[in-house]
Formats: sequence, structure tokens, C-alpha cells
Amino acid sequence: VASVMAEENLSVVLHAPGDLRVEKRPIPEPGPNEVLLQMHSVGICGSDVHYWQHGRIGEYVVTKPMVLGHEASGRVVKVGSAVKHLEVGDRVAIEPGAPREMDEFFKNGRYNLSPTIFFCATPPDDGNLCRYYKHSANFCYKLPDNVTFEEGALIEPLSVGIHACRRAGVTLGSTVLICGAGPIGLVSLLVAKAMGASQVVITDMIPERLTMAKELGADFQLKVKSDDEPQHLAKSVEEQLGARPHVAIECSGVESSVQTAIYATRSGGVVALVGVGPQMVTVPLSNAALREVDIRGVFRYCNTWPMAIAMLASGKVNVKPLVTHRFPLEQAAQAFETTRQGLGIKVMLKCDQKDQKP
Amino acid sequence: VASVMAEENLSVVLHAPGDLRVEKRPIPEPGPNEVLLQMHSVGICGSDVHYWQHGRIGEYVVTKPMVLGHEASGRVVKVGSAVKHLEVGDRVAIEPGAPREMDEFFKNGRYNLSPTIFFCATPPDDGNLCRYYKHSANFCYKLPDNVTFEEGALIEPLSVGIHACRRAGVTLGSTVLICGAGPIGLVSLLVAKAMGASQVVITDMIPERLTMAKELGADFQLKVKSDDEPQHLAKSVEEQLGARPHVAIECSGVESSVQTAIYATRSGGVVALVGVGPQMVTVPLSNAALREVDIRGVFRYCNTWPMAIAMLASGKVNVKPLVTHRFPLEQAAQAFETTRQGLGIKVMLKCDQKDQKP
Amino acid sequence: VASVMAEENLSVVLHAPGDLRVEKRPIPEPGPNEVLLQMHSVGICGSDVHYWQHGRIGEYVVTKPMVLGHEASGRVVKVGSAVKHLEVGDRVAIEPGAPREMDEFFKNGRYNLSPTIFFCATPPDDGNLCRYYKHSANFCYKLPDNVTFEEGALIEPLSVGIHACRRAGVTLGSTVLICGAGPIGLVSLLVAKAMGASQVVITDMIPERLTMAKELGADFQLKVKSDDEPQHLAKSVEEQLGARPHVAIECSGVESSVQTAIYATRSGGVVALVGVGPQMVTVPLSNAALREVDIRGVFRYCNTWPMAIAMLASGKVNVKPLVTHRFPLEQAAQAFETTRQGLGIKVMLKCDQKDQKP
Amino acid sequence: VASVMAEENLSVVLHAPGDLRVEKRPIPEPGPNEVLLQMHSVGICGSDVHYWQHGRIGEYVVTKPMVLGHEASGRVVKVGSAVKHLEVGDRVAIEPGAPREMDEFFKNGRYNLSPTIFFCATPPDDGNLCRYYKHSANFCYKLPDNVTFEEGALIEPLSVGIHACRRAGVTLGSTVLICGAGPIGLVSLLVAKAMGASQVVITDMIPERLTMAKELGADFQLKVKSDDEPQHLAKSVEEQLGARPHVAIECSGVESSVQTAIYATRSGGVVALVGVGPQMVTVPLSNAALREVDIRGVFRYCNTWPMAIAMLASGKVNVKPLVTHRFPLEQAAQAFETTRQGLGIKVMLKCDQKDQKP
Repeated sequence: VASVMAEENLSVVLHAPGDLRVEKRPIPEPGPNEVLLQMHSVGICGSDVHYWQHGRIGEYVVTKPMVLGHEASGRVVKVGSAVKHLEVGDRVAIEPGAPREMDEFFKNGRYNLSPTIFFCATPPDDGNLCRYYKHSANFCYKLPDNVTFEEGALIEPLSVGIHACRRAGVTLGSTVLICGAGPIGLVSLLVAKAMGASQVVITDMIPERLTMAKELGADFQLKVKSDDEPQHLAKSVEEQLGARPHVAIECSGVESSVQTAIYATRSGGVVALVGVGPQMVTVPLSNAALREVDIRGVFRYCNTWPMAIAMLASGKVNVKPLVTHRFPLEQAAQAFETTRQGLGIKVMLKCDQKDQKP
Repeated sequence: VASVMAEENLSVVLHAPGDLRVEKRPIPEPGPNEVLLQMHSVGICGSDVHYWQHGRIGEYVVTKPMVLGHEASGRVVKVGSAVKHLEVGDRVAIEPGAPREMDEFFKNGRYNLSPTIFFCATPPDDGNLCRYYKHSANFCYKLPDNVTFEEGALIEPLSVGIHACRRAGVTLGSTVLICGAGPIGLVSLLVAKAMGASQVVITDMIPERLTMAKELGADFQLKVKSDDEPQHLAKSVEEQLGARPHVAIECSGVESSVQTAIYATRSGGVVALVGVGPQMVTVPLSNAALREVDIRGVFRYCNTWPMAIAMLASGKVNVKPLVTHRFPLEQAAQAFETTRQGLGIKVMLKCDQKDQKP
Repeated sequence: VASVMAEENLSVVLHAPGDLRVEKRPIPEPGPNEVLLQMHSVGICGSDVHYWQHGRIGEYVVTKPMVLGHEASGRVVKVGSAVKHLEVGDRVAIEPGAPREMDEFFKNGRYNLSPTIFFCATPPDDGNLCRYYKHSANFCYKLPDNVTFEEGALIEPLSVGIHACRRAGVTLGSTVLICGAGPIGLVSLLVAKAMGASQVVITDMIPERLTMAKELGADFQLKVKSDDEPQHLAKSVEEQLGARPHVAIECSGVESSVQTAIYATRSGGVVALVGVGPQMVTVPLSNAALREVDIRGVFRYCNTWPMAIAMLASGKVNVKPLVTHRFPLEQAAQAFETTRQGLGIKVMLKCDQKDQKP
Repeated sequence: VASVMAEENLSVVLHAPGDLRVEKRPIPEPGPNEVLLQMHSVGICGSDVHYWQHGRIGEYVVTKPMVLGHEASGRVVKVGSAVKHLEVGDRVAIEPGAPREMDEFFKNGRYNLSPTIFFCATPPDDGNLCRYYKHSANFCYKLPDNVTFEEGALIEPLSVGIHACRRAGVTLGSTVLICGAGPIGLVSLLVAKAMGASQVVITDMIPERLTMAKELGADFQLKVKSDDEPQHLAKSVEEQLGARPHVAIECSGVESSVQTAIYATRSGGVVALVGVGPQMVTVPLSNAALREVDIRGVFRYCNTWPMAIAMLASGKVNVKPLVTHRFPLEQAAQAFETTRQGLGIKVMLKCDQKDQKP
């Protein structure tokens, strides 16, 4: 531990829109219910890039320097006095949202909706793109030996897919439309298949993404253009599947794509909204209502880490192909630029100088 | 039966927009799985008036003369050869939707979504505003002695309220916002209370309707104007209840009201859409999605008659005050005009010349 | 506060089977997330009496002196440093189970199943039958002005009824069989009615209890004898209701009564087990399985206080008639003896010398 | 069609316990809503053997000659006048249960619970182990070209597994205990895996069955003996998985196995009862109740054929290894004897003389 304290804590800090710095910060001291983690692998998310570019997402505004990063795993190097289930040396995946209050949402098992929740790299809370980071021990999950640190970090985006498929009611034999073949569309694809979906159609504007989706198991790909007619696209989906899909998972946030999802979904089915669009959107709500197609939002996730670890440990889901780029923490600027340009799928930052393996 | 066949079958027939006629039609012959009913009480619904005024509702267009009416009860006068559970003389309430095919929706218990369903007074299917009407015996439900014919007819609108509250997840201690205090808003109020809602706020533009809602049990009334700001109204609802409602039941179909319902509902709650609005509406979908406020349509109902009869028979719900006007069948024109003018709540047509009692 | 510390803390302490003492204990000091309460009203539960008589319930054994009592309400007299939602003077109802760990059950919203939960008057945790008691502030719920302390204390048994009816799936128009008309059977009756049950049959061996159940709203009463044949009783229930009940709530724990509940319940329905019986019971499991009658246990409750307060505040449930006896705390011995003899329904101990009102 | 009528209709008819005959019967004429099928593949079920050996199962008694067989597929050779979705030449899988009445169970989507349902080879209804058989067209499902007749026949046992896993709530990351590695245990294993179960433990007394289970994907096998202590076995399961399973699927019907399932299941989990045991069984019901382990029966299935076909067509489930023996219809006696001796897993009878392929 002494050696830990002597070390620097290199961190990726956003100071203002466009002003991203890799700088030293103090190593934090864990409280009684916390653990200090030596970070290993942290993925870059679209939201990290958005904060970097715009300094805000909706009502969340960066008003003081904030460490980025929330797709993360690391190793326990210090344990708070009240922590029982972890010890120094444990490899853990980090759930970035840790509720601060036992409010009605937490008590009801939907703690992701708690308005006072701590969440990594959402202003004003710091993220974990750094060398050393402390976190609520209750939201650090021990990784089995056969699950790598990078898989551990990927549990965060995977959790979005799990929560989306769960909210959408994907089950055995479901047919699924996924709108958007970015990272979230792809993890939703993996999860839908693991939950028993029989056929998945995935859409995107970029052919390379559809090719990747095909490699990851998508049964049908549908290339869309910005001026395609939603009802026409819905018809194409129906023709590919031979019937309307039971479920649509909208991952783009684009208005016309939400419209397509509604028109396409079978009566009695569900449209899950994962992509965040503009504040007001125009949609065929009566089409959905008269066919009892439910529209359900997906806000982050809750209660997903244990099942995600179970899936990874048992080999039921393979997320490894999602990592297409790796950079050491020191090269964060280059890593962020790679993500901004939309190259590959997932860029992973390696925070441990002595272990840069997956 | 002989006397039946000798009688005329006076019927309220819509020939074209604005062209409503009370005319004689043949008395139908029930098939093996049908019963012939001597109609007793038939309520006039907003949709009946809409067909009369416009000749269509959305994609449903009246292209040939159609008998109106679907809120109905009557007495069995002839029984099909394969019918076991009914006999001549039984007093029954009529579920106007009877599925024609055992498709996936019917097999799954959501037969209201079956695209080929027969439905009274929805083109091209005739309704039951007449003296004699035949219907699938499986969708005629025997009334106990202590439930009147008019209560039996009111099961139809009551069923919309039941299905809405059920889809909305109203349960013990729920707080509920109901947008619109017309007949459907009022039955939703009655049902929400019967299902255990602790507090109900109801909105409307017309003070008289709010007064009626108060008499029927609404805890709070909110008078709205067409130019009220939805977010402001949502705030008013929160202030009345002391917290956001768990559930909103939108019965107006008005765009701004749907917006209010979304803003007002508590995170993790449900907005049930009962009112049918225009094809495209502009709504704060990301506000709903990021707070996991589900948006669920309500299309008619299924599996509601038995529980409605149970509630009426046990006195748990009192729908009698909803009937404000009564006319003999012969005066259908006057009855329709009364409904069109929005006078009272429910206008009831009395089809049995020898028994015009409730 | 100074005056508080000077006072004695008279407490009802169980030392050994049969050895119940009213003795002074130190006034506890609340931790940062706790509040100190001046107790007002505490009901005596059958489990309190069972500990007194036998020193154990199943695997829970009293091995050191333990304060009894867990149906309680009081007034905040001291507030921990981290508590935000309560202040001195607040009147609160106490949820006696407060989870100690954020384990999988707590995170999933079923904290009652957490194996390390603190629970009042379950060994080794002390209860709150005393003058001053400290409790987790997150599990103290502020009472509105129109809800009395005694109603606040009765939320505990009411919560068992809520959790039972919720687990049993009681809904609008449900018909319900309740086995046993003791306090839990009676609160289940009240809740079932408030949730929309149309008809309730209640059974008991003691006519006075059935009379009380009738007064509280039971539609049918069935007097049972210990040697009645379960299948015969099931038939009687069916005859009373005109059809098998959708739901049975078993509150006696008696083997033959569990059998009756299974035989009586309609196919596709639910038997909720609230009464705790012997370790092994012989039941017609294949009768339940082949008719898909689910058997669901009810262990205490979770997430019930807010909805219970809402129901009491709105007058939807009236629990006041349940209190049939009151004693000052000093006369605890007499109060326990009254409960042991099965006199009345609920015996309430009044802990505040200056305010013995309901 | 003329050629059909000229053919004989060789059928496997049970006349009395032990008296199984292969004899000619008339070819039936399909009604307006029926189709006539030329049978292709029919699997032998344990219940067929049980009727053959004992002439009854519980209250179902063979009182007149009955054709056996209900795991079946065939080809449409004649179509009733009202049938729209099938035509001559279609290859179909047969759902053996076809409700006769639109009762509350059917309307609610749980038609398997309808007391008047027609069900193949359940007295007094004839099965389809014959050359020609007529069936309700609504319960015949067209097979895609890439699904074989034998796969179509295996949808029946597969459906039991689907309904069991669905009732048990198997989902992503579930850990599952399956008691019994016979045909139903094995299909439950396949389905649990397809629905996302991360780990499955399966038990049996016969090593060969456990080996087969391992080959089909079981993660752990537990060999049990008739005198094993249930609580000890439960402990073994917990040790294999590292934690109690979320779900147990009991396929043996043996009392001690039901006990093991209850003890083994995690708090808040589900025990699904698929195996039919004796009328009365002794079980640790309070252990289940106090941990809210639900006990849910599984009676046949409903709404499973479409999803089963989707799974087979997409290759998500592979049932082909289950067929270990094949006999031409004429050798039914030998086929039944093979099943009776417990050889292999599934014995398939080939009913079409001109096409004995899978």
C-alpha cells in the first residue's frame, strides 16, 4: 500500500469542451464501504466523447474539471473497514452507478432511476479513466479467473444490452429489430441471441457496421438512408422476417428510426428506446396505441453485473471481438480521437503500466 | 319465437355521414354458436356520433349502411344449436368484439388485437342499436338478478376503464392522473378507485365535467385551458398530490395532454393512452425514456366482462350515476343529438317497448 | 434532548421462556443514519407471545435477553447526522426489517429475503416495546396528520396483508378464500377488498372471529372443525361463491387448511401461504401442479409502508376496529396475557406516559 | 384424395391394459375447421406406455379402445371448407391439445387449463399413432422446409420444456437444477440453455442418462440414489454451482426429489413441477414459504408451437440427437417394448410407408 501512495495517479480530465488533459491527481482514500482500485481497462463510450466535444449531455453540464470513463475494471489495492466480500488482489468489474440514498426506487429494485445516484463521469461525479479510483464496494463485482479485465470493462455496455432486451421482453423465439449497429446495437444483438431470439434484423447507414453485425450473428441486415420512408422500411423488415418482429430495440435516437420501430413492431409487442434523441420527437403514437405496441425507455441498467459475469464465465456471450483498438492511458488523446472518428467498435484504454494485456 | 318473428326489427342505421335513419330490418337467424337477443338498453358512444358526423374513424370507413351501437344488453330469445351456457330468457351483457379466428393474439389471451375480429358498429360490422340482434354466444354474459340491463350496457365503457387501469398497472396506493373527464375518464376514475388507487387527479376544460368527477370520487380536479403549458400543468399535478403520480391515463387524445401526462408521471411509472389522437404527435419521448416512464396503448379491452359483472354484482363499482338521459329507440335522432351536444354523460336508448326501466 | 437522556427507558424484555420482565435499559444513541424515537404505540403480535412462551420460533432461538415488539410507531426525538428526510418531532411508523447489506435481494427490490436483515424482536435483534428506541431512518416513515399513532403501528400487520394479497395476485373482481380469521386473516380481508376483490370467503373454527370478519366486510363465513374433510370444505367454498375462488390466502399454517386451500383454488390461481406450519406437511401437490395452481410463500413484506400510509390517509382502509385492548407499557404482563388468551383482536401497548391516546 | 380413401388406416389401438393392437380403422372425414393428415412421424411418450401397462393415468381411465400417440407430424391430404391457412401438401406439426370451448381459460390465453379440451390419446380422445388422422386446423402448424417431420413431432416434448422453463422464469444468467434426465429433463435442459441459463445441474439415478445430458450441454451432473438425503443433495448442488440455483425444474415426480428441489432453490426462486407424483406428498412447505420459493405446476403447454418452430428453423435448439430408435408403424409392439425397457431416449414410429426418412 505504501508503494501505491507513492505513485502518481494519472487521470484523463475534461476541463472544458475540447479541453481534455492527461494529468496527475491525488490518489483517493477509500471510505469504510469503499475499495481503492488500481484501474486496468477502461473503454471509451460515445458519451465520453460527447462531453469532450460539447461539455454537456442534455441537462448534465460539465462546470468543473471531471475525470472521464465509466466502462471499467481493475484490481483491489485497498479495502474499506466495513467491506466484507472483497480483498486486496481481487479483480473486479465496476458498476458505475451506485445509489446514494435508499429511496423508493432503490427499495423497489430500480435503483437506476434514483435521482441522486452517483454515476461515473456524469457531472459532477468523476469517472475512472485513471490509475487509481475508489468506488462503493457493493458495486464492484469479483471476476472469475476465466473472465479478462477487458471483458469486465465491457460488462458496462453489455449491461445496456441486457437491460434493453429485458425491458423489451425478448424471450425464446422472439424476432427482433435492432435500429443502429453501433456498440449498443451490437451488444443488444449479442444479448437478444443469448436470450433465445430466433431472428434479428439490424439496420444502419454504414455498410461496415452491418458487416460486423453479420459476423456477430445478425440474421438480416438492412441498409438505411436518411431519407428512407419509415413505413417503407417497416415493410422491408416484415418481408425479411416473414412477419413483423415481436420487439424493436431503437439504438440510434433518430426520429425517423423511432417511427420505423413503431410501424415495424407486431401488435402487442414492444419498442425499447435506448438511443437518446432530441427533446421533442414526432411519432405515430396512435399507430402504437391502437395496436398496443408498448414504448419503453431504457435508462442505463440495474441488477445486470451478476448475470453478465455468469454469461461471460460460461462462454454464452462473446464480447471480445468488440475491442478493436487499444491505447495506453498516456495516449488517451489519440484514443479519444479514434473513437470520435468512429473507427472500429470499442477503443480500450490500458491503465496499468505493468499489465497491458486484455 | 313465433311472436318474435312476426315483430319488426327497428334499427338505427347510418347510411352516410349525417344520414342516420331509424328503419326496419329483418330479424336475423342465429347460427349454431349464436344467440338471438331482444335488445333492452344501448348506450351511445362518442364513436357512434363520430361515424354519424364523419362517416369514418381513421381507416374505418362506412361504405354501406351500418347499424350503430355497441354498449348493449338484452334478453335471449333464441339459442343456437351448439350453445350450452345460455337459455331463452337469460338477461345478458354483450361484449361487442368477438374474434373470428384463433390466431396468435386469441391464443395468447389478447384477442382484442386480432385483426379480423368482429366488432359491433365498426365498418363493415353492424352494431346492436335495434330491437333484435344476434351475437356469438361466447361473448354474451349472463347478468345476475341484482345487475340491471343498463348496468349491463355500461359494462362496455367500464371495460375500457378496466383495461386502461390494468394496462397502467394501477394497484393499492397508486396515485393516478386522469386526463379528460368525459365518460371514459369517469369510468377510469371509478375503476382506479376500485383497484385501490389512493388519490386521483382529473383534468378537463369544462367545469361541469370536473364537478361530476368530484361527485364520483376524484380527489383533485384540475381545470385546464387549451394554451396551458404542459410542464406547468405537470407541476400543478405534482403539487396537488405532493408527489408525481405513479400512473397517468390519457383519455383526451389531445397532443398537449399527452405531453402533460408524460411530464407529470413519476419515474418508472406508466402513461396509458386511451384517447385516440391524430396520426402523428410531437411528444417529449426522451423525457419518458430517460425516466423509464412506459407508454402503453389501450385498444378496447379483453377479458373484462366477468370481472365487471363481479364488481357490479357486489356493489364495488357504481355506474348508475353515469346515465343522465334516456330515450326510446324510436327517438334515436334526438338521443344522438343530445350526445353530440355533449349534454350529460351517458345517453341510453331503450330498445324494448314493453320494458323501458333501467 | 437533555430531558430525554435523563429519563429512564422502560423496556419489555424476554429473558427466557416464560420469563418476561419490564425493566430499565439505557437509552440508545442513534448513529449517523439513525433516529432515536420516543415510542408511542406498539401492538402485540402472535410471534411475541410465541417467543415468550417457547423462547424460539423455528430456528430463531432467544439465547440472551431480547426486547420484544415490532408493530410500532413513535416520535422522532433525535436525528443522526446523515439523516435528511426526518426531523425532531416527526411522527413515524417503523418498518421493523432494515437490511444490513446491499446484497442481491436488496438490489432486486426483495430485501425481506436478505439473510442478514435486522428485524425487531427476532433473535438476536431487539424490538421496540420500550420508551426509547433507535432505528434506521430509511425505514421510518413520516405519518400524515390524519393518521394516528395506532394506525401507524398497525401498518406492520397490514403490510403482511398487503404483501400476501400482492403475492397472491388479488385484483379487480377476484374472488378470495382466506383461511383463518385471526389478525392476519382480517388484514388480508381488508386489503383484498381494497384491491378490488369482489367476494371473500373466510374460514375459522371460532364463531366470534367469523362474526368480526363479517363486520369487517367478509361476504361469506365458513365455520370449520378440525376433522372436516379438506375436499368437502373446498366444495363448500365453491358453493358459496358459485365458482372456485381465484385466490386462497392461507393464514393458519394448519396442514388440513393448506390442503383445503389447494383443493379450493381455481385452475391457474394462487395459494399464498402466510401462516407458518410445521417443517414437513403432506399436501395434494399434484392436484395443484396439474391445474397450475401456484403455491407462493409470504415472508414478512417489503415496500409496503408508503402504500399503506396512502391507504390510511385516504381512508380507503379502516384498521381502527382491529384495536380491542389497550394497556400502558407498565402493564405489559397483563397485555401479553390478554393476547395469549386470544381475547379480542389486537392488543396495543401505550409507551408514552404523557400521551396514551390512539 | 381418391387414392387416400382407398387406403387402409392402420392404427395403434389400446383395448385394455396390456392389450395393444395394430389394426385397421376407417379414415376419418375432416369437418369444416379440420384437416386430414397423412401421419409421418409419431414419438412414443411415457404416458403412452403407462396407458398400455395400466389402462389409466390418475383419473383418466381407458374405458373403450383408444388410439395412442400425441407427439406427431404429418402432411395435409384434405382441407376442411372453412380452413384458410393450410393446403394439401403442407407439412405440419400437430399440437395435440385443442380447446373445445371458449371458456375463461381459453380467453385468458391459458387454454391448456380448459377442462373440456380435446387431447390426443387422453381418454376418451383418440391419438394419432395411425396412417390418417384429422385434427383442428388451428392447432396444426406448417413446418418450414428446413425442419424435418421428426423435429416436428419432437415439438411436443420440447413444448413441455418450453412451458416449464417459461413458468420457472428461466432467463439470462439463470442457474438451473433439473431433477431427472429422462426425455423431459433433457428437453428442459436444451430450452433452459437456449433461454440464456448460464449453468445447469442435472440429476438422475442412471449414469447413462447423465452422460447423455452432458453431451446435450449440462454443465454438472449429479448421480443420486434413492436413499440420498434431500438436504444433503441440495448442498451438493450448491457446491457444484457455487451458489443455490435460481430455479429448479422437477421432472421425476418422486417425493424426495421434490424435497431436494425445494431445499436447493435460492430464496425468491421457483420450483417448477413437471413430473407427476402421487396424489399426496410430504414436502418442506414452510422452508419454501419462508424463503418465498414459489412452487409452480406445469400442465402440458400452451402457445409453444410457433416459438418452437422458430427455434428449430433457426438452429437455436437441436433436438435431433434425442431420437435413438425408429420403427415402422407396423412394428409398434416392438417400439413400445423398447420404450418400456427405457432403452435410448426417444423411439419414433414411422407412419408413412413411402417415406420413412427423419
